[in-house]
Amino acid sequence: MRLGHRAEAIDIAGGHVTGSGPDGKSFALGYDRLLIATGAAPIVPRRPGFDRPEVVVVKTLEDAQAIKARLQSGSVKRAVIMGMGYIAMEMAEALSLRQVTVTMVKPRAELLPWLDAELAATVRGELEHHKVELRTGFDVARIEAGKGSNVAVVDASGASLAADLVIVAVGVQPNSRLAADAGLQLGPARAIAVDRQMRTSNPAIYAAGDCADAFHVVTGQRAWIPLALRANRAGWAVADHLTGREVALQGIAGTAVFKVFDLQVARTGLSVAEAAQAGFDATAVTISASSRAHSHPGGSPLQVHLVGDRRTGRLLGAQMVGREGAAHRINAPAVALHATMTVEQFGQSDLAYAPPFGPSWDPLLVAANQLIKKMKEES
Amino acid sequence: MRLGHRAEAIDIAGGHVTGSGPDGKSFALGYDRLLIATGAAPIVPRRPGFDRPEVVVVKTLEDAQAIKARLQSGSVKRAVIMGMGYIAMEMAEALSLRQVTVTMVKPRAELLPWLDAELAATVRGELEHHKVELRTGFDVARIEAGKGSNVAVVDASGASLAADLVIVAVGVQPNSRLAADAGLQLGPARAIAVDRQMRTSNPAIYAAGDCADAFHVVTGQRAWIPLALRANRAGWAVADHLTGREVALQGIAGTAVFKVFDLQVARTGLSVAEAAQAGFDATAVTISASSRAHSHPGGSPLQVHLVGDRRTGRLLGAQMVGREGAAHRINAPAVALHATMTVEQFGQSDLAYAPPFGPSWDPLLVAANQLIKKMKEES
Repeated sequence: MRLGHRAEAIDIAGGHVTGSGPDGKSFALGYDRLLIATGAAPIVPRRPGFDRPEVVVVKTLEDAQAIKARLQSGSVKRAVIMGMGYIAMEMAEALSLRQVTVTMVKPRAELLPWLDAELAATVRGELEHHKVELRTGFDVARIEAGKGSNVAVVDASGASLAADLVIVAVGVQPNSRLAADAGLQLGPARAIAVDRQMRTSNPAIYAAGDCADAFHVVTGQRAWIPLALRANRAGWAVADHLTGREVALQGIAGTAVFKVFDLQVARTGLSVAEAAQAGFDATAVTISASSRAHSHPGGSPLQVHLVGDRRTGRLLGAQMVGREGAAHRINAPAVALHATMTVEQFGQSDLAYAPPFGPSWDPLLVAANQLIKKMKEES
Repeated sequence: MRLGHRAEAIDIAGGHVTGSGPDGKSFALGYDRLLIATGAAPIVPRRPGFDRPEVVVVKTLEDAQAIKARLQSGSVKRAVIMGMGYIAMEMAEALSLRQVTVTMVKPRAELLPWLDAELAATVRGELEHHKVELRTGFDVARIEAGKGSNVAVVDASGASLAADLVIVAVGVQPNSRLAADAGLQLGPARAIAVDRQMRTSNPAIYAAGDCADAFHVVTGQRAWIPLALRANRAGWAVADHLTGREVALQGIAGTAVFKVFDLQVARTGLSVAEAAQAGFDATAVTISASSRAHSHPGGSPLQVHLVGDRRTGRLLGAQMVGREGAAHRINAPAVALHATMTVEQFGQSDLAYAPPFGPSWDPLLVAANQLIKKMKEES
């Protein structure tokens, strides 16, 4: 372990990595096999005022501890969160529950562009129910000193939001500069392109974690979806491959889940737009069912959105929003995507039933039956 | 609709059903196609005292309403439940929560013979924690008038349990007598044998619901597992087939879930014993993981048991017990069974992760990795 050593270049011809140590001295380390595991970094817009101390990103444990310390000091009454992805939403929940008034802003019009509009409306309702203000179409131009409060977050049109804290959660980008400079192939979003053995375009160099891409099991194409399971799995796969074990990672289905207040939001596979872009003849249905059997008290609506390919009948994606039953239920269509099942095959699955946990026809199966019907009608 | 008309015989040669109406008069109804949907009936031991009014089965809504009325009269302080299956457990919970002292009895030694011993011990602990007494090895010989209480439930060895209410939940059997008398082929447990179009051995006669069997997707063999989804799906399949739509039901994976107090108990596919009996070279692992990420408060143990075939590497079954996250998570291995995935393929699934809902490596994946290792070591 060489803490404080920054790698600055990979010399592929020479088979070594060069950089500088904590004392400023340069170093060179030879390798037979090299692993690049440089992760991803939060995107911070290069606009005026983002270097102010009230502006923070959420990446490391220290970032979170710093935010917590600031909250405990009692000086944060109003926060602006830039971004409306799942990190942004988790922060919105955490701050709201600590009596901070939260406004979320983003330049685009859609709350969660990858989520079906009906499901996204439920998420919006949940945030608004908890007094989180959502300002879509708000493109932050600069952050400047405020009047009553610490800073003013100003958008392109001059609209201004007062805030004691600004959290930047507009996404992450792969730390792939080292790889790019060394001439290694990059994939989508400039993530490092790797094969199923985690090898980059140079077979002596591996990449794993949020800096590397993966094959998407639905499209078969490269995709960059930096999530914990794949990052972790890729690290293990490199270790397996280096120690002589056979390894060939199938890839990712893009399965993800998050909690926002009392809602579970889950997805796997492609949205209709993503499917169309990947060349599928995509169509979709959205249904709402009860999270429990009619006979069982305490149920709540569970929305299910399923995407299929009219040409082949293949299941392409699933999305769910509800107060219960979405988070783990998404794993069933995720497995179906790995198995390249048709909607019809998935719709025949023997899914679990008991009154406290769902209707006898699982909401996923109800959605599958609707999608089968729709695909037939449309083809 | 001819309510009160009891079918008594199927005359296959004549193409009609005969029986008797509410007035005692006999009837004959001709058919081109016939559907047998006679369901299943609770097994009631033919032993002395089972005709007493304190002894009830749980099958119809009226049965449940009668039990509820008796509870509301305040005369039920102690109940004996015969059987320890999921209906028996649901009754134990319902009665306990209404301050009835519950003793569950069964002749065999195991609480839930199909459940891995470690997982079954957790279920036992949950019942005992809620003061439900479990008496395995208690084979009820007779029920007789009691002293202080209404009845005495007496086992073969003379041991006696006082009870104000005796619930018989020792299982169900298919109502297949009509079919058997007509010479139709019967399958396991004397359920009516049907093909993937729900046709019996006579192509003009269909059977659907709890009276009919199904193909098990793991074994490929006939199985009788009377659960709501299959029963319902089979009815729709008959309607589809009769109206000229192509239909071929894949079959069942034996997926089931129930709640007992604060525990979720879920299964799909085969147990090790069932797998061995079906000719597989079965082995299994049991792991315990947290239901949430370490960083998230409120997690509880989730036990996962996975069964695989050493010869082919195929996933054969899964079982889970935990306070949260078992009920819907079981659907992922259920889909994997439909897709005849290997444990290795299933272990590569991109399952959902967020701290409130599980660790980054889903407990199912942890179990799959353990099982892959074990299968390699043992082969």
